[in-house]
Amino acid sequence: MRELTLIGIGTGNPDHVTFEAAKAIAAADTVLIPRKGDQKSDLADLRHQIIAKVAPDAAPRIIEFDLPTRRGDGDYLAAVDEWHDAIAHAWTAAAKDANTVALLIWGDPSLYDSSLRIASRLDPMPNIRVVAGITTLQALTAAHAIPINEIGAPFVVTTGRQLRDHGWPQGADSAVFMLDGHCAFQTLNGADFDIWWGAYLGMENQLIRSGPLDLVCADIIATRATARAAHGWIMDAYVLRKRR
Amino acid sequence: MRELTLIGIGTGNPDHVTFEAAKAIAAADTVLIPRKGDQKSDLADLRHQIIAKVAPDAAPRIIEFDLPTRRGDGDYLAAVDEWHDAIAHAWTAAAKDANTVALLIWGDPSLYDSSLRIASRLDPMPNIRVVAGITTLQALTAAHAIPINEIGAPFVVTTGRQLRDHGWPQGADSAVFMLDGHCAFQTLNGADFDIWWGAYLGMENQLIRSGPLDLVCADIIATRATARAAHGWIMDAYVLRKRR
Repeated sequence: MRELTLIGIGTGNPDHVTFEAAKAIAAADTVLIPRKGDQKSDLADLRHQIIAKVAPDAAPRIIEFDLPTRRGDGDYLAAVDEWHDAIAHAWTAAAKDANTVALLIWGDPSLYDSSLRIASRLDPMPNIRVVAGITTLQALTAAHAIPINEIGAPFVVTTGRQLRDHGWPQGADSAVFMLDGHCAFQTLNGADFDIWWGAYLGMENQLIRSGPLDLVCADIIATRATARAAHGWIMDAYVLRKRR
Repeated sequence: MRELTLIGIGTGNPDHVTFEAAKAIAAADTVLIPRKGDQKSDLADLRHQIIAKVAPDAAPRIIEFDLPTRRGDGDYLAAVDEWHDAIAHAWTAAAKDANTVALLIWGDPSLYDSSLRIASRLDPMPNIRVVAGITTLQALTAAHAIPINEIGAPFVVTTGRQLRDHGWPQGADSAVFMLDGHCAFQTLNGADFDIWWGAYLGMENQLIRSGPLDLVCADIIATRATARAAHGWIMDAYVLRKRR
């Protein structure tokens, strides 16, 4: 592997793909696609559709590989470390005859994604290139047609785990939460916040809800559970803003 | 004006445009382009180039209008308020014969951009739609091939003004700074931070610098001043991370 391009492809809508991403897909000789088991197979299918759509004439070779799973027990960071090593090995094995390799990354490779850290473990180290993609933040705020920040004001980007473990982020009025499998917004006093929530953002089955947290909290929890059961997976995120 | 679409177009590289943005440009009957005076005319030119490139067959009508200027004196938020009213009037006057109008927004309409707030002042209120775009954050981290966050950790997105007036954001290890005309990173103790800086991100004349803040601070300040003088304008941003 001489070159590895990590390509942000947005949140599942093939139209989120940029011209730069389409060119990078067409320019790769090989695209690696992870298989995560049956429940998420529509995500692998979506990657195939995106390649066929944006690079119809280039037809890069597509190699699927089984994504190793992370140990759920023990120390979280140690488990992540081991897992990243295993994925780096899986990439190397899958791409053993390839020269220029592309990986399609949901959202953007910079944002709550491990690909750059995994790539740094490759040996020998290929040339690493990143193509920026539409993130969940942009897809979420576009769906609601809201600014993410108040005028000139800061905001925090964080995870559901952080909210659950450490409470509302210090000093913040607005925050975006990603990777929240447990609706951590339930731990807040709903009367103090407004929420803008979305799932499957930009996709046909997009769901959005917004309002005072105390009024829409139960609906979001129920809607999320129903959708997750129906699809087998869910990707969602939300903005919370302190009420004046 | 029946419909107004705010279209994120990325940071100046026409290849940052998404397929969704290209379709939205082609679907509008009118595109409004602000004129900001001679020094920034290459930005208006770039918008013309993007339209010609991504919607070559659609050829929406392009209407240029003079962007009102903001009072520099007195209360900042009051001046912004007055300015947004003036821009809303300028949009209405420029689009008086239009039905579906598009505005091309640098980066993404959700992030340190006033278009959504200005649009909310239109009377009568058109249907507002947002198309997500590549932000400076994605373009910056892609140029440096770095993740923006540490594993599972939060980060802050804020402005140079906030850093200058309020110091390092409370509780943060990593932060992204935008809209900094005064190199506010100078106010920090350089030995405590690493910086990843970039200007004209994704464009041909892209500039990037990174390293321990105390070692690269002077170079960034000088590089920025030279580039700004040469081009007449600069758009830049940086990530700062506390050193361990």
